[in-house]
Amino acid sequence: MRRFIVIGQTATASGDFSLDDLPSSSGRLDILLRCLRSSLLISHGLRRDVVAYLVLEGGPLAPRVLRVDGAAAKFIRPDERALALLVKRALAAEPPLAGRGFLEVKPGLAVANGGLDCAVADLGGATPYVLEERAPDLRAAGIRGGDTAFFIGDQLGFAPATRAALADIGACPVSVGPVSLHSDDVVVLISNELDRHEADPGWNAE
Amino acid sequence: MRRFIVIGQTATASGDFSLDDLPSSSGRLDILLRCLRSSLLISHGLRRDVVAYLVLEGGPLAPRVLRVDGAAAKFIRPDERALALLVKRALAAEPPLAGRGFLEVKPGLAVANGGLDCAVADLGGATPYVLEERAPDLRAAGIRGGDTAFFIGDQLGFAPATRAALADIGACPVSVGPVSLHSDDVVVLISNELDRHEADPGWNAE
Repeated sequence: MRRFIVIGQTATASGDFSLDDLPSSSGRLDILLRCLRSSLLISHGLRRDVVAYLVLEGGPLAPRVLRVDGAAAKFIRPDERALALLVKRALAAEPPLAGRGFLEVKPGLAVANGGLDCAVADLGGATPYVLEERAPDLRAAGIRGGDTAFFIGDQLGFAPATRAALADIGACPVSVGPVSLHSDDVVVLISNELDRHEADPGWNAE
Repeated sequence: MRRFIVIGQTATASGDFSLDDLPSSSGRLDILLRCLRSSLLISHGLRRDVVAYLVLEGGPLAPRVLRVDGAAAKFIRPDERALALLVKRALAAEPPLAGRGFLEVKPGLAVANGGLDCAVADLGGATPYVLEERAPDLRAAGIRGGDTAFFIGDQLGFAPATRAALADIGACPVSVGPVSLHSDDVVVLISNELDRHEADPGWNAE
């Protein structure tokens, strides 16, 4: 199982954003939506072994966490507007009571009232990693698949309190390359590294 | 200089698609728009050493090629709707005469009336590669940066005539991993590989 937890410091936790002006009206939720695509979708299919968490720290209803489980989710489309509509409806659903964990609002789609703690409490025994620039190279980190969880920041990086919380749970810092990239691209590079570890050695033999 | 040429077999070459229903109304131009983001944009910036070509083979005005030059382009935003609007306006501009090559319609943004040939004629001395599943691994392909051009298919892969044309110019087949991915994710993996080759060896030393 692979888990991606993307933390949006300004991304809205309420569904009242405009589909026609997503970046401005949603506090850059668009960045997190693109992470849903890159974590869950492959060519003509859905990654069934992935769970994506969007930690939404912006707007009056924050913090909330949206969880999309590839094993149960249906009708996840790659285009940003469709993803925005999916999330808009999920966030508009009756919110669960705080402290009660995740409430499923559609198959594979769940919302929790709470912040990063909710996501962390949901990880089970997954080995946590945190994406940091100039940290040790993911390619050399010795990750061999299994149950992993990757924490990824947004356009602002991580808030100090988040960084401290991730250190507390022992999240291991890794990086994906020499250039500072969009969050969804970081997810692509992690997925590829895990795909390579899990593939048969002859994957590229014709 | 890095060049990415993404070939959309159904992607519309005319600007009359709907921003509210991009995948259906544009012949999956959305796939190619996402390649613009992933090829040209990094965290808080634009890759100045990248040129992206969208080969549009769908609709009544096809084929046409849209070229975006990172060295001159301005105001490239990451969200799909903004990219769609940019391309819609470029395609609505007065088309150049066929056979006359690229006509700049905005700084860094140019359109040619013609197909894959127009893109190929524009590559100069770049070394061509074609992305094919199960081809030799990009990581082992010995690419050391310089002037490169990567041809990438869409949700349908490549048409036989395209594959033949790319073989004719000696495009070297490479692959990025064991899983069949979206075109924009393929671009991310190529860019990362080139970034790594071009970076100082100590890029990840704190």
